[in-house]
Amino acid sequence: MSSLPVAGTLPAGVVLTPLRRIAHPLGDVVHGMKAGDDGFAGFGEAYFSHVLGGATKGWKRHRRMVLNLLVPAGTVDFHLHDEAGGHGATVRIDAQSPARLTVPPGLWMAFSAVGGAPALVLNLASLPHDPAEADTAPLERFARVPWEMP
Amino acid sequence: MSSLPVAGTLPAGVVLTPLRRIAHPLGDVVHGMKAGDDGFAGFGEAYFSHVLGGATKGWKRHRRMVLNLLVPAGTVDFHLHDEAGGHGATVRIDAQSPARLTVPPGLWMAFSAVGGAPALVLNLASLPHDPAEADTAPLERFARVPWEMP
Repeated sequence: MSSLPVAGTLPAGVVLTPLRRIAHPLGDVVHGMKAGDDGFAGFGEAYFSHVLGGATKGWKRHRRMVLNLLVPAGTVDFHLHDEAGGHGATVRIDAQSPARLTVPPGLWMAFSAVGGAPALVLNLASLPHDPAEADTAPLERFARVPWEMP
Repeated sequence: MSSLPVAGTLPAGVVLTPLRRIAHPLGDVVHGMKAGDDGFAGFGEAYFSHVLGGATKGWKRHRRMVLNLLVPAGTVDFHLHDEAGGHGATVRIDAQSPARLTVPPGLWMAFSAVGGAPALVLNLASLPHDPAEADTAPLERFARVPWEMP
Protein backbone atom coordinates (compact mmCIF):
# COMPACT_ATOMS: atom_id res chain seq x y z
CA MET A 1 0.00 0.00 0.00
CA SER A 2 3.05 2.28 0.23
CA SER A 3 2.40 3.84 -3.16
CA LEU A 4 -1.22 4.69 -2.35
CA PRO A 5 -2.10 8.07 -0.86
CA VAL A 6 -2.91 7.08 2.72
CA ALA A 7 -1.94 8.69 6.05
CA GLY A 8 -2.73 6.83 9.28
CA THR A 9 -4.22 3.38 9.69
CA LEU A 10 -6.75 2.35 7.06
CA PRO A 11 -9.74 0.77 8.87
CA ALA A 12 -10.60 -2.84 8.04
CA GLY A 13 -12.82 -3.21 5.01
CA VAL A 14 -11.70 -0.01 3.33
CA VAL A 15 -10.50 -0.64 -0.22
CA LEU A 16 -8.50 1.83 -2.28
CA THR A 17 -8.37 0.93 -5.97
CA PRO A 18 -6.29 2.87 -8.49
CA LEU A 19 -8.23 3.58 -11.69
CA ARG A 20 -7.13 3.86 -15.29
CA ARG A 21 -7.13 7.25 -16.98
CA ILE A 22 -6.94 6.59 -20.71
CA ALA A 23 -5.44 9.42 -22.73
CA HIS A 24 -7.55 10.62 -25.67
CA PRO A 25 -6.82 13.62 -27.92
CA LEU A 26 -10.39 14.97 -27.50
CA GLY A 27 -10.53 14.33 -23.74
CA ASP A 28 -9.45 11.46 -21.51
CA VAL A 29 -11.63 8.53 -20.48
CA VAL A 30 -11.51 7.60 -16.78
CA HIS A 31 -12.66 4.33 -15.30
CA GLY A 32 -15.05 4.37 -12.35
CA MET A 33 -16.48 1.01 -11.36
CA LYS A 34 -17.73 -2.14 -13.00
CA ALA A 35 -20.29 -4.48 -11.50
CA GLY A 36 -18.24 -7.21 -9.87
CA ASP A 37 -15.17 -5.02 -9.22
CA ASP A 38 -13.44 -5.26 -5.87
CA GLY A 39 -15.60 -3.22 -3.47
CA PHE A 40 -18.78 -3.39 -5.56
CA ALA A 41 -21.74 -4.15 -3.30
CA GLY A 42 -24.66 -3.56 -5.66
CA PHE A 43 -25.98 -0.36 -7.18
CA GLY A 44 -28.52 1.67 -5.25
CA GLU A 45 -27.88 5.28 -6.23
CA ALA A 46 -25.33 7.56 -7.83
CA TYR A 47 -25.11 11.14 -6.60
CA PHE A 48 -22.61 13.98 -6.65
CA SER A 49 -21.41 16.14 -3.80
CA HIS A 50 -19.66 19.39 -4.65
CA VAL A 51 -17.20 20.71 -2.05
CA LEU A 52 -16.12 24.34 -2.01
CA GLY A 53 -12.37 24.96 -1.82
CA GLY A 54 -11.19 24.53 1.77
CA ALA A 55 -14.57 23.21 2.97
CA THR A 56 -15.04 19.95 4.89
CA LYS A 57 -18.30 17.98 4.89
CA GLY A 58 -19.04 15.46 7.63
CA TRP A 59 -18.95 13.51 9.85
CA LYS A 60 -21.42 10.96 8.58
CA ARG A 61 -21.71 7.25 9.31
CA HIS A 62 -23.83 4.84 7.31
CA ARG A 63 -25.27 1.78 9.00
CA ARG A 64 -25.91 -0.31 5.88
CA MET A 65 -24.69 1.58 2.80
CA VAL A 66 -21.38 0.75 1.16
CA LEU A 67 -19.87 3.89 -0.39
CA ASN A 68 -17.79 3.82 -3.55
CA LEU A 69 -16.26 7.26 -3.82
CA LEU A 70 -14.72 8.82 -6.92
CA VAL A 71 -13.23 12.27 -7.51
CA PRO A 72 -14.14 13.56 -11.00
CA ALA A 73 -12.67 17.03 -10.32
CA GLY A 74 -10.24 18.59 -7.84
CA THR A 75 -8.41 17.00 -4.93
CA VAL A 76 -10.18 15.51 -1.93
CA ASP A 77 -9.01 14.31 1.47
CA PHE A 78 -11.32 11.58 2.73
CA HIS A 79 -11.15 11.37 6.51
CA LEU A 80 -12.09 8.01 8.02
CA HIS A 81 -12.62 7.29 11.70
CA ASP A 82 -13.12 3.84 13.18
CA GLU A 83 -14.79 4.64 16.49
CA ALA A 84 -14.59 1.07 17.81
CA GLY A 85 -10.92 0.73 16.91
CA GLY A 86 -10.06 4.24 18.00
CA HIS A 87 -8.03 5.06 14.92
CA GLY A 88 -8.42 6.69 11.54
CA ALA A 89 -6.86 7.58 8.24
CA THR A 90 -6.83 10.22 5.56
CA VAL A 91 -6.90 9.16 1.93
CA ARG A 92 -6.09 11.78 -0.69
CA ILE A 93 -7.49 11.37 -4.18
CA ASP A 94 -6.79 13.73 -7.06
CA ALA A 95 -8.81 13.66 -10.26
CA GLN A 96 -5.56 13.51 -12.24
CA SER A 97 -4.54 10.23 -10.54
CA PRO A 98 -7.94 8.64 -10.13
CA ALA A 99 -8.76 6.02 -7.54
CA ARG A 100 -11.89 4.55 -6.00
CA LEU A 101 -12.37 4.50 -2.23
CA THR A 102 -14.71 1.82 -0.92
CA VAL A 103 -16.03 2.55 2.58
CA PRO A 104 -17.97 -0.18 4.38
CA PRO A 105 -20.84 0.59 6.76
CA GLY A 106 -20.01 1.58 10.33
CA LEU A 107 -17.15 4.04 9.74
CA TRP A 108 -17.33 7.78 10.24
CA MET A 109 -16.37 9.73 7.14
CA ALA A 110 -15.74 13.37 6.33
CA PHE A 111 -14.18 14.91 3.24
CA SER A 112 -12.37 18.12 2.33
CA ALA A 113 -11.57 19.92 -0.91
CA VAL A 114 -7.85 20.65 -0.67
CA GLY A 115 -5.53 22.85 -2.70
CA GLY A 116 -7.79 25.90 -2.72
CA ALA A 117 -10.00 24.73 -5.59
CA PRO A 118 -13.51 23.27 -5.41
CA ALA A 119 -13.82 19.53 -5.83
CA LEU A 120 -16.46 17.03 -6.84
CA VAL A 121 -17.18 13.62 -5.30
CA LEU A 122 -19.31 10.91 -6.90
CA ASN A 123 -20.75 8.27 -4.61
CA LEU A 124 -21.79 5.05 -6.31
CA ALA A 125 -23.79 3.89 -3.30
CA SER A 126 -25.01 0.37 -2.69
CA LEU A 127 -28.39 1.65 -1.46
CA PRO A 128 -30.62 4.57 -2.35
CA HIS A 129 -30.47 7.53 0.01
CA ASP A 130 -32.24 6.84 3.31
CA PRO A 131 -31.62 9.31 6.14
CA ALA A 132 -32.70 6.64 8.64
CA GLU A 133 -29.59 4.55 7.97
CA ALA A 134 -27.08 7.37 8.53
CA ASP A 135 -25.80 9.22 11.61
CA THR A 136 -24.14 12.61 11.61
CA ALA A 137 -21.75 14.25 14.03
CA PRO A 138 -20.07 17.67 14.16
CA LEU A 139 -16.55 17.94 12.78
CA GLU A 140 -15.11 18.61 16.25
CA ARG A 141 -16.22 15.22 17.52
CA PHE A 142 -13.33 13.18 16.12
CA ALA A 143 -9.75 14.10 15.40
CA ARG A 144 -8.76 14.00 11.75
CA VAL A 145 -5.51 12.32 10.77
CA PRO A 146 -3.39 15.04 9.20
CA TRP A 147 -2.27 14.40 5.68
CA GLU A 148 1.49 13.93 5.29
CA MET A 149 3.23 13.65 1.98
CA PRO A 150 4.01 9.95 1.54
CA MET B 1 -41.27 18.48 -23.31
CA SER B 2 -41.21 22.16 -24.28
CA SER B 3 -39.25 23.15 -21.21
CA LEU B 4 -36.56 20.55 -21.80
CA PRO B 5 -33.46 21.42 -23.82
CA VAL B 6 -34.16 19.51 -27.04
CA ALA B 7 -33.78 20.54 -30.70
CA GLY B 8 -35.13 18.25 -33.41
CA THR B 9 -37.08 15.03 -32.98
CA LEU B 10 -36.18 12.92 -29.97
CA PRO B 11 -35.91 9.28 -31.13
CA ALA B 12 -38.22 6.74 -29.51
CA GLY B 13 -36.93 5.32 -26.27
CA VAL B 14 -34.82 8.34 -25.36
CA VAL B 15 -35.67 9.66 -21.89
CA LEU B 16 -34.63 13.05 -20.57
CA THR B 17 -35.06 13.38 -16.82
CA PRO B 18 -34.46 16.64 -14.95
CA LEU B 19 -32.42 16.09 -11.78
CA ARG B 20 -32.46 17.84 -8.44
CA ARG B 21 -29.56 20.07 -7.46
CA ILE B 22 -29.83 20.59 -3.71
CA ALA B 23 -28.21 23.76 -2.45
CA HIS B 24 -25.72 23.31 0.41
CA PRO B 25 -23.49 26.02 1.94
CA LEU B 26 -20.38 23.81 1.63
CA GLY B 27 -21.18 22.60 -1.88
CA ASP B 28 -24.36 21.44 -3.62
CA VAL B 29 -25.55 17.84 -3.83
CA VAL B 30 -26.75 16.70 -7.26
CA HIS B 31 -28.87 13.66 -7.94
CA GLY B 32 -27.74 11.17 -10.58
CA MET B 33 -29.72 7.94 -10.75
CA LYS B 34 -31.37 5.50 -8.40
CA ALA B 35 -31.92 1.83 -9.15
CA GLY B 36 -35.48 1.65 -10.42
CA ASP B 37 -35.58 5.21 -11.79
CA ASP B 38 -37.13 5.81 -15.19
CA GLY B 39 -34.45 4.73 -17.70
CA PHE B 40 -32.54 2.50 -15.30
CA ALA B 41 -31.65 -0.77 -17.05
CA GLY B 42 -29.22 -2.32 -14.59
CA PHE B 43 -25.72 -1.29 -13.58
CA GLY B 44 -22.81 -2.59 -15.62
CA GLU B 45 -20.16 0.12 -15.43
CA ALA B 46 -19.65 3.77 -14.57
CA TYR B 47 -17.01 5.71 -16.51
CA PHE B 48 -16.19 9.31 -17.28
CA SER B 49 -15.41 10.93 -20.58
CA HIS B 50 -13.73 14.32 -20.58
CA VAL B 51 -14.36 16.52 -23.62
CA LEU B 52 -12.06 19.40 -24.48
CA GLY B 53 -13.75 22.73 -25.19
CA GLY B 54 -15.17 22.73 -28.70
CA ALA B 55 -14.40 19.06 -29.29
CA THR B 56 -16.94 16.49 -30.47
CA LYS B 57 -16.61 12.75 -29.75
CA GLY B 58 -18.51 10.22 -31.86
CA TRP B 59 -20.34 8.77 -33.64
CA LYS B 60 -20.85 5.60 -31.64
CA ARG B 61 -23.75 3.15 -31.60
CA HIS B 62 -24.25 0.48 -28.96
CA ARG B 63 -26.04 -2.72 -29.86
CA ARG B 64 -27.05 -3.79 -26.35
CA MET B 65 -25.91 -1.15 -23.84
CA VAL B 66 -28.35 1.40 -22.41
CA LEU B 67 -26.54 4.67 -21.66
CA ASN B 68 -27.49 6.91 -18.79
CA LEU B 69 -25.58 10.13 -19.36
CA LEU B 70 -24.90 12.84 -16.79
CA VAL B 71 -22.93 16.09 -17.05
CA PRO B 72 -21.01 16.76 -13.81
CA ALA B 73 -19.13 19.74 -15.31
CA GLY B 74 -19.52 22.08 -18.26
CA THR B 75 -22.17 22.12 -20.99
CA VAL B 76 -22.65 19.25 -23.42
CA ASP B 77 -24.65 18.87 -26.64
CA PHE B 78 -25.63 15.24 -27.10
CA HIS B 79 -26.30 14.52 -30.78
CA LEU B 80 -28.60 11.59 -31.47
CA HIS B 81 -29.26 10.04 -34.86
CA ASP B 82 -31.89 7.42 -35.58
CA GLU B 83 -30.59 5.87 -38.80
CA ALA B 84 -33.72 3.78 -39.41
CA GLY B 85 -36.04 6.73 -38.82
CA GLY B 86 -33.83 9.18 -40.66
CA HIS B 87 -34.05 11.87 -38.03
CA GLY B 88 -32.16 13.12 -35.02
CA ALA B 89 -32.01 15.51 -32.13
CA THR B 90 -29.64 17.55 -30.04
CA VAL B 91 -30.08 17.60 -26.29
CA ARG B 92 -28.16 20.24 -24.33
CA ILE B 93 -27.33 19.55 -20.69
CA ASP B 94 -25.54 22.01 -18.43
CA ALA B 95 -24.10 20.97 -15.08
CA GLN B 96 -25.92 23.90 -13.45
CA SER B 97 -29.33 22.56 -14.57
CA PRO B 98 -28.67 18.85 -14.31
CA ALA B 99 -30.57 16.22 -16.24
CA ARG B 100 -30.08 12.57 -17.14
CA LEU B 101 -30.22 11.42 -20.75
CA THR B 102 -31.16 7.78 -21.27
CA VAL B 103 -30.16 6.44 -24.69
CA PRO B 104 -31.41 2.98 -25.71
CA PRO B 105 -29.37 0.64 -27.91
CA GLY B 106 -29.40 1.17 -31.66
CA LEU B 107 -29.03 4.95 -31.86
CA TRP B 108 -25.96 6.79 -33.06
CA MET B 109 -24.64 9.26 -30.50
CA ALA B 110 -21.98 11.96 -30.49
CA PHE B 111 -21.33 14.69 -27.94
CA SER B 112 -19.69 18.11 -27.88
CA ALA B 113 -18.40 20.40 -25.15
CA VAL B 114 -19.98 23.75 -25.91
CA GLY B 115 -19.36 27.26 -24.60
CA GLY B 116 -15.58 27.13 -24.94
CA ALA B 117 -14.94 25.27 -21.69
CA PRO B 118 -14.11 21.58 -21.23
CA ALA B 119 -16.90 19.33 -20.05
CA LEU B 120 -17.27 16.00 -18.30
CA VAL B 121 -19.75 13.22 -19.06
CA LEU B 122 -20.55 10.31 -16.76
CA ASN B 123 -22.06 7.23 -18.32
CA LEU B 124 -23.89 4.92 -15.93
CA ALA B 125 -23.97 2.07 -18.42
CA SER B 126 -26.16 -1.00 -18.21
CA LEU B 127 -23.29 -3.25 -19.33
CA PRO B 128 -19.54 -3.24 -18.79
CA HIS B 129 -17.48 -1.92 -21.70
CA ASP B 130 -17.32 -4.38 -24.59
CA PRO B 131 -15.98 -3.07 -27.90
CA ALA B 132 -17.76 -5.93 -29.70
CA GLU B 133 -21.20 -4.45 -28.96
CA ALA B 134 -20.43 -0.96 -30.31
CA ASP B 135 -19.99 0.49 -33.80
CA THR B 136 -18.24 3.73 -34.64
CA ALA B 137 -18.56 6.10 -37.58
CA PRO B 138 -16.79 9.34 -38.55
CA LEU B 139 -18.47 12.60 -37.60
CA GLU B 140 -19.11 13.44 -41.27
CA ARG B 141 -21.35 10.42 -41.72
CA PHE B 142 -24.53 11.89 -40.24
CA ALA B 143 -25.78 15.44 -40.10
CA ARG B 144 -26.09 16.89 -36.63
CA VAL B 145 -29.23 18.76 -35.64
CA PRO B 146 -28.10 22.31 -34.87
CA TRP B 147 -28.93 23.58 -31.42
CA GLU B 148 -31.42 26.41 -31.30
CA MET B 149 -32.34 28.30 -28.21
CA PRO B 150 -35.72 26.94 -27.10
